[in-house]
Amino acid sequence: MLEAGFAARLGSLLPSDRFFTDPVDCYAYAYDNTRKIFPPDAVVFPVTALEVQAVVRLCIEYGTPLTPRGRGTGTSGGSLPEQGGVVLSLERMLRIVTVDPTNRVIVAEPGVINQSVQDAAKSHGFFWPPDPSSAGYSSIGGNLATSAGGPHAVKYGTTRDHVLGLKAVTGGGEIIRTGCYTTKGVVGYDLTRLLIGSEGTLAVITEATLKLTPLPQARGGITAHYRDLASCAAAIVQVMALPQTPSALEFLDSGSLDLIRSRYPDMLPAGARAMLMIEVDGAESYVPEACAAVIFACANEGLIQAEETADAAALWRARKTLSPLLRDIAPKKINEDVVVPVSALPEFLDGLARLSSKYEVANVNFGHAGNGNIHVNLLVDPALPDEMSRAATCLNEIFDLVINLNGTLSGEHGVGSEKRAYIGKEIDAATLTLMKQIKRVFDPNNILNPGKLFP
Amino acid sequence: MLEAGFAARLGSLLPSDRFFTDPVDCYAYAYDNTRKIFPPDAVVFPVTALEVQAVVRLCIEYGTPLTPRGRGTGTSGGSLPEQGGVVLSLERMLRIVTVDPTNRVIVAEPGVINQSVQDAAKSHGFFWPPDPSSAGYSSIGGNLATSAGGPHAVKYGTTRDHVLGLKAVTGGGEIIRTGCYTTKGVVGYDLTRLLIGSEGTLAVITEATLKLTPLPQARGGITAHYRDLASCAAAIVQVMALPQTPSALEFLDSGSLDLIRSRYPDMLPAGARAMLMIEVDGAESYVPEACAAVIFACANEGLIQAEETADAAALWRARKTLSPLLRDIAPKKINEDVVVPVSALPEFLDGLARLSSKYEVANVNFGHAGNGNIHVNLLVDPALPDEMSRAATCLNEIFDLVINLNGTLSGEHGVGSEKRAYIGKEIDAATLTLMKQIKRVFDPNNILNPGKLFP
Ligand SMILES: Cc1cc2nc3c(=O)[nH]c(=O)nc-3n(C[C@H](O)[C@H](O)[C@H](O)COP(=O)(O)OP(=O)(O)OC[C@H]3O[C@@H](n4cnc5c(N)ncnc54)[C@H](O)[C@@H]3O)c2cc1C
Ligand SMILES: Cc1cc2nc3c(=O)[nH]c(=O)nc-3n(C[C@H](O)[C@H](O)[C@H](O)COP(=O)(O)OP(=O)(O)OC[C@H]3O[C@@H](n4cnc5c(N)ncnc54)[C@H](O)[C@@H]3O)c2cc1C
Repeated sequence: MLEAGFAARLGSLLPSDRFFTDPVDCYAYAYDNTRKIFPPDAVVFPVTALEVQAVVRLCIEYGTPLTPRGRGTGTSGGSLPEQGGVVLSLERMLRIVTVDPTNRVIVAEPGVINQSVQDAAKSHGFFWPPDPSSAGYSSIGGNLATSAGGPHAVKYGTTRDHVLGLKAVTGGGEIIRTGCYTTKGVVGYDLTRLLIGSEGTLAVITEATLKLTPLPQARGGITAHYRDLASCAAAIVQVMALPQTPSALEFLDSGSLDLIRSRYPDMLPAGARAMLMIEVDGAESYVPEACAAVIFACANEGLIQAEETADAAALWRARKTLSPLLRDIAPKKINEDVVVPVSALPEFLDGLARLSSKYEVANVNFGHAGNGNIHVNLLVDPALPDEMSRAATCLNEIFDLVINLNGTLSGEHGVGSEKRAYIGKEIDAATLTLMKQIKRVFDPNNILNPGKLFP
Repeated sequence: MLEAGFAARLGSLLPSDRFFTDPVDCYAYAYDNTRKIFPPDAVVFPVTALEVQAVVRLCIEYGTPLTPRGRGTGTSGGSLPEQGGVVLSLERMLRIVTVDPTNRVIVAEPGVINQSVQDAAKSHGFFWPPDPSSAGYSSIGGNLATSAGGPHAVKYGTTRDHVLGLKAVTGGGEIIRTGCYTTKGVVGYDLTRLLIGSEGTLAVITEATLKLTPLPQARGGITAHYRDLASCAAAIVQVMALPQTPSALEFLDSGSLDLIRSRYPDMLPAGARAMLMIEVDGAESYVPEACAAVIFACANEGLIQAEETADAAALWRARKTLSPLLRDIAPKKINEDVVVPVSALPEFLDGLARLSSKYEVANVNFGHAGNGNIHVNLLVDPALPDEMSRAATCLNEIFDLVINLNGTLSGEHGVGSEKRAYIGKEIDAATLTLMKQIKRVFDPNNILNPGKLFP
């Protein structure tokens, strides 16, 4: 519960339609894609950096926790107000401030949906490469705060590679500007990328200068089906050894294929136990030769068939249904997004199978294999305490395997609250101490998303 | 002068052939490409992170300034031991630790020369995109500490876009690891890019995990000559509006062309007063069509001719002689590397001409126009105090013009000591305070490159 004095002053900062305290109104801001629920005491909807600053300063004065929130699609608990207090929703900061095709720049407020940026860019022949599957409903601010990525990261990189500068309000209540408007710039420390991926723990991003990329002239799609996992994993390594970097290289294991079969019975060959969906893009003249090179690299003993797909869109639709279909089977599944070096994928996928059978936990894996980024799903039922406990041990061993293979615990979802217990597996004590000290510089009163990211 | 106790202990940390105190030996570590001279009291050559750590810790104990140094090719005074003390040269940390083409990674120690990385990558069909003109003699550590870039940055970005992780020793004497080995990773704050471009003020980089890019199959070169500056500037904007992003787009003004004529009398058409050197790269099939598109975009009223160059290598050699040739005329020239948005180049180049004539300071400009990054040279003679004073006022106005056009004061050289007086023009007080606080977190005793970067 908020102190009465605090609530009154918060209310005086914003008009009543941009300030909720009724628990019913607040409830929609209590959860994210983790399905955990932490109702905030208040929700505010600032529309300018100055309003954000005023709210931050009030929270500092009262020591009230403040959690920035984009569209709540995060999967690591980043936007959950675990300690109560105020949720600061950016969803009404919706202006695209500048569309500047000559300089390949769009300046946008944080509430703008990723897809709106794509639409604004497309009419000028550009796109903004970060492409989370949630592009239709996640915000630029959320994408930045998590350094979101998607299937095209294998060729185009993730969010941090496509931002020139930011405006933000620090946890200390200062308005700052980072980076610049140009594609080169080395004046001062790179605060832009320090904020990108910081999950709302350092500053509230209030404006972003996004770097655009020309749309490719053409695209080609390839599917390759394998009789067994090992052959498929070996093919991933072969394809990534090509100079023709694919624009997407998605892997689906046998569990994923069975799920797709349950929805689309005739889409996949009968004997297929693993599959790659590969995309190449570039000039018209380049795409056919790149497809040919990829199909050649896909070939090995376990290959059933590799071919150009007539209807790539249908395939991507099928791929996109995987996460929701898994939710149907196991609404409370454990969903990770670990990364290992591409060369370690065969060993990693093999290890997953071993751990899944050792701990008797159903496991389905798919993901952005070109980056070595695998979505590991443990299909557990929280009603079964024994299964949950086996799954916890299994997960811990999966993380150890990832670290032993020189990988990372999260490729795109971030740490939030879900992975903070494990961060010490990856980041040594000295480096973690430094990160905490940086947190203190930006947020000396620890009001901004307190408790997140650190164990 | 070093305290005797300090010198003795420093000497005990390293064998005598890796520890200089004789002023004659130290003198080679007193200057960089600014031609300013600050002799250090000692030079050390550690070869492991533990040795670096031991030196840092001793400097903390005695409060001795410590300046990291790669190969001293920096042009902003970053490696100068302005306050005396110890120069820590990384030039003997020369190991390429890992060449891993399957994962597109090279792990290198900081003293490795950029060109050695290129050579190691090339045999596997890769390159490392950061390409300063000094690639033949600048170090990976220096490239990282300045986020170096070069002509190919227009397509490939700068150093910060091509590094996956680091090992480093902070100013506080802690060994840290940042980033990861994979192309995706969002666990914790992005300390990798915080260190990149931090000019040796936060930590000594002792190892870098570099991300490789496949070599393009083919390259094409185009030159375009213009009767006047304005037409050339307009053409830059046209070319950068193409979806075929050039891999290099270099601009040379009339002063630059006259310099080249002085060395290569028959290379350039007589009436040319401005010139573009453009490169495209990609698949064999793509290059001819991209060249055609570029040549088409180059056309305007002021164009004398635009054509594919038979001998692109000769042109690049001529381009590379510019900086040295300018040094012959004006050994103490003022040499800036400002950036403006590409669309503002016409106005900026026009403004430069105006300011050069207003202050009667000879001015030659060339550079990476595709990024809006212009090397502005004021050809002054320090023996002429009046000219120097006019140049200082002129430079100040040039910087104001850059900032008014939404540009940045440095695209690749960094702040060091040369530009620190101007940093407040670009970075506001709140943001600068935050940067200073970050400096304090990494280097609480202010021993690492003290006095650099901040006014
Ligand atoms: C179906 C589905 C598919 C998904 N696919 C992908 C995918 O392919 N790739 C991927 O990377 N992610 C994916 N995600 C996860 C999620 O969509 C991304 O993390 C997204 O970037 C979150 O955006 P959001 O606007 O919903 O942010 P939220 O979930 O509201 O917030 C995420 C984090 O960012 C912080 N934050 C939000 N806005 C700001 C701001 N303006 N300033 C500072 N901090 C802020 C929050 O505090 C929180 O820590 C998916 C999610 C779903 C539900
Ligand atoms: C002819 C010529 C052409 C050039 N062309 C370009 C160009 O095209 N693009 C460009 O960007 N630059 C260019 N430069 C500038 C210079 O080469 C770059 O800045 C280069 O990156 C510096 O590397 P270095 O090894 O010489 O570093 P140094 O000059 O020794 O040091 C540069 C800075 O990095 C710090 N540093 C060095 N090593 C480390 C380390 N291991 N850890 C922490 N800090 C460290 C130093 O303290 C200093 O602040 C050019 C220079 C010359 C002389």
